[in-house]
Amino acid sequence: MVFKEILPLHPKKLTHSMNNKIKFTPIGGVGQIGSNMALIETSSSRFIIDVGILFPYEDFFDINYLIPDMSNIGKIDALIITHGHEDHIGAITHFKEHYPKVPIHTPLFASKLMEKKLKERGLGLKFKIYKPFDQISIGDSLTVTPVPVDHSIPETYGLLITDKDSDTAFMYASDFKINNTENKDLEKAAETFNKFKNRVTLLDSTNITSSQDKAFTEEELYPDLKKVISESGGRVFITAFASNVERTQTINRICKELKRPMVMLGRSMKFYAQVGIETKHLKEHTKIHYEFGIIKPNDDRLVCMVSGCQGDFKSATRRIISGDDSKIKLSKDDVFIFSSKTIPGNEKKLSMLENTLSDIGCKIIKPGKLKIHASGHACREDLKVMYSIFKPNFVIPIHGESTFLDAHIDFVTEILPEALSIRILNQSSLVFSKDGKHEFIKNEKINPILIHGRDIEIERSSISERRKMACNGVILISVNKKSKSYKLRLQGLPKALDEKEQQLNEIIQSHLNFSKNSSDTDSSEDLRIKVRRVCRELLGYKPVTFVHIV
Amino acid sequence: MVFKEILPLHPKKLTHSMNNKIKFTPIGGVGQIGSNMALIETSSSRFIIDVGILFPYEDFFDINYLIPDMSNIGKIDALIITHGHEDHIGAITHFKEHYPKVPIHTPLFASKLMEKKLKERGLGLKFKIYKPFDQISIGDSLTVTPVPVDHSIPETYGLLITDKDSDTAFMYASDFKINNTENKDLEKAAETFNKFKNRVTLLDSTNITSSQDKAFTEEELYPDLKKVISESGGRVFITAFASNVERTQTINRICKELKRPMVMLGRSMKFYAQVGIETKHLKEHTKIHYEFGIIKPNDDRLVCMVSGCQGDFKSATRRIISGDDSKIKLSKDDVFIFSSKTIPGNEKKLSMLENTLSDIGCKIIKPGKLKIHASGHACREDLKVMYSIFKPNFVIPIHGESTFLDAHIDFVTEILPEALSIRILNQSSLVFSKDGKHEFIKNEKINPILIHGRDIEIERSSISERRKMACNGVILISVNKKSKSYKLRLQGLPKALDEKEQQLNEIIQSHLNFSKNSSDTDSSEDLRIKVRRVCRELLGYKPVTFVHIV
Repeated sequence: MVFKEILPLHPKKLTHSMNNKIKFTPIGGVGQIGSNMALIETSSSRFIIDVGILFPYEDFFDINYLIPDMSNIGKIDALIITHGHEDHIGAITHFKEHYPKVPIHTPLFASKLMEKKLKERGLGLKFKIYKPFDQISIGDSLTVTPVPVDHSIPETYGLLITDKDSDTAFMYASDFKINNTENKDLEKAAETFNKFKNRVTLLDSTNITSSQDKAFTEEELYPDLKKVISESGGRVFITAFASNVERTQTINRICKELKRPMVMLGRSMKFYAQVGIETKHLKEHTKIHYEFGIIKPNDDRLVCMVSGCQGDFKSATRRIISGDDSKIKLSKDDVFIFSSKTIPGNEKKLSMLENTLSDIGCKIIKPGKLKIHASGHACREDLKVMYSIFKPNFVIPIHGESTFLDAHIDFVTEILPEALSIRILNQSSLVFSKDGKHEFIKNEKINPILIHGRDIEIERSSISERRKMACNGVILISVNKKSKSYKLRLQGLPKALDEKEQQLNEIIQSHLNFSKNSSDTDSSEDLRIKVRRVCRELLGYKPVTFVHIV
Repeated sequence: MVFKEILPLHPKKLTHSMNNKIKFTPIGGVGQIGSNMALIETSSSRFIIDVGILFPYEDFFDINYLIPDMSNIGKIDALIITHGHEDHIGAITHFKEHYPKVPIHTPLFASKLMEKKLKERGLGLKFKIYKPFDQISIGDSLTVTPVPVDHSIPETYGLLITDKDSDTAFMYASDFKINNTENKDLEKAAETFNKFKNRVTLLDSTNITSSQDKAFTEEELYPDLKKVISESGGRVFITAFASNVERTQTINRICKELKRPMVMLGRSMKFYAQVGIETKHLKEHTKIHYEFGIIKPNDDRLVCMVSGCQGDFKSATRRIISGDDSKIKLSKDDVFIFSSKTIPGNEKKLSMLENTLSDIGCKIIKPGKLKIHASGHACREDLKVMYSIFKPNFVIPIHGESTFLDAHIDFVTEILPEALSIRILNQSSLVFSKDGKHEFIKNEKINPILIHGRDIEIERSSISERRKMACNGVILISVNKKSKSYKLRLQGLPKALDEKEQQLNEIIQSHLNFSKNSSDTDSSEDLRIKVRRVCRELLGYKPVTFVHIV
């Protein structure tokens, strides 16, 4: 059975009471990958799961990231963090500004990552650190139980959310994979879950369309990574997701066995390794270096882990490959390993870097025939295991783009035809009642908020102004009406326009001579139109033009 | 045997004479996909193959495309066009401006496409239309023979270039695939080619890393396309490369058989279909409509071919999917077929459109399990056929990014170990002599030129100005020093800065009061610095700021 939210569907308000009901509202992360955030409410309590950021999905220029709009969420009793990835904790400073006093339940590892962000903004650092199977009570009838799951960052949890009043259990696991099909933790959680009338799973859709049936475990990567490193004739550079401390551990183990020095390059690689050591998730088999010194950058035994596996502009990976690093200059004897996958949208950036590596003559190693990257997200076989342990009668796919939600529903319809699969998008809600009924509520779509610079919101209208200037260039004319003097500036315009500068000057001069009687507003608008018209004749487009009469 | 051009390699000038030698210089298209252009020279003659454009490979904002720099090519005797794709003819107007009198040898179909571009710019329209196996003589010893090849646009040719003086034959086929392994045309060309001392193949690398071994033929697509269209309950929209007239023919044939009306949507879909009909490459089995009228947009038998399979911002595909088309409003009964592949760099744009289709509830059909798109480029098996017909002793991979050239060389080293594979990049040259020797010449890298608006060059420095304005916003201050009046404008800046506007006004005012004695230049620079400093405190970045004192 399938219920799908499709467009257009008009907002619908829930009018009756929430007694003996529980409501789920995804605020981010459903119909998109990123900015994971969900609201769970009963008549007596409300809490949020995760506060993630979304990486720019179209050209917003230099913005940092996007966050879910939190202005209409209202009063809440708690925030529960599932794990420390940026798409789950990245908006913590913004959350803290909205909710300075709301308790934050979090695993230790994620708390260390949030601590850094909050410190930088001078915000409070109080956390309630939870452990596996702690019972977090929220309000009268809600209990949240953190269930350890496998993923690609230490201390990741699924949340078992139970509500006696509505006889409902949610198993919320936006990010997980299955390392061992016999999983005592999941079985323990399912024992509780399977007793409820409404059994709702909310599971990861990231890899539902993957060509791979089953996510690799970290352990499976060891042989190929060791082979590649041991066979390298020169230095080895490995870029990976810096938060994947297990990967760092694997490389460290290999370095120990091959007696090769290991150096971390790039700020995030260093930071996560240090948090890993502090929280005891990373054990140093051989010393991890953070600077060159005893270890020389041209040592041909060098193994470096490098931040920036997505080719980010400011990353160590890009700096090193582009030849802009002060210490590392790549040569044809070096090996560059991408122990990571390409996040959609970064394909071109990464292939450009690969071309540069190839022009230098470096050996490039990417996942494919070699097992050198393991995704942290469930493939279809992992999901099958999950759906065999938990017995839902309601299935809500989360953590995926719209097409992934559809694929997840198609998949579940096949393996669990008796469950009702529900396709819901951000901001809409689902209500489950004690009597086993459910209700779908369509809410207005709310755009995520763009954050730029020092964590400041930048409005879409300002981005649109930026876009106009970037696509059309800018002309500034300042006029002293009295003295008839003026200044003209062309910015971001082709040299070809310089040849027309004389013509522009004549227009301005003649305008100054003949517009004495019009108001400043009329006069400046009149001049603006004339200048834009001349430019358009030559360029085919009109520069953004400002005329200031002072 | 392999020779690889790798970086850094310093420019090397050829000092001795070109007697009994022939030189090949790729100007574009090698180490990148796009802007195909190559120069062939002997001591007595020089000609160019193709004049293609390159689509923007990073964020250059709204520019149209990039073209190879033609300023240093020097005198040439001819241009020979291999086929009508934009990456082979797109820069024809720029070429014509540089070389108004140089003869252009071209197939008829490509000439019709170039005619349109040249007409729009008021440039000459003279072409020398060639036919298969015409003998085009250039200078004393060079002969070019067009050899028909299979591709994804009508009238595509490989060029057999022979030079008696240097005893050299080039088989240049940047874009081809093999529909039938028994190919009389290729065999005929090879008969000549294989008699020369220097036998140089320059072949397509586009699909060398493809997971597919052999490119599909157009004929192979017919069953699946027919199945998908006949099984659709509602309207069918098919986006494809508009220049692929064979695809239009396949759909037209299916429409005839299924008795469904066929409508072309989008300017390029209409244009190419009309050129196809004019040149007799497209035969109308059933009438092709270009407008709605007798055919209604809501007719559920409708089959539409839609321009913009790469999701371009201004395309019909994007307009229709985004709900911005005045006639077509999609609904959940519609089927949307992507009869095309995603060109690297467009992944995110296209997945966003797919998400929208999925939110509307449309059925999305993409290549994968279904055979609904055939690439025009050789896969490894196609290349094998080519290398078995032509017997090169020199192999130069072209039409590919740097990593593709490497993969092509690895491939050739395995199947043709006796040939010398040479990895050369744009602007470098290879010289072959009568005595069987070859020489590699490294030239300075030349950046392609950015074209914006009405085909005007825009300099990289202007793009960098545009980028700064787009990433940091703009502040304009015009000051009348005498009257102490001024105007302040914030453009592309967050609302948060408006709150600081009072502070900015105070800075300007106090500056006006205390800078009477400084020069205008000092004074404006001083004010500029002050304003940027205040903004940085709040925003974390400095807006591009202009102060005009008039």
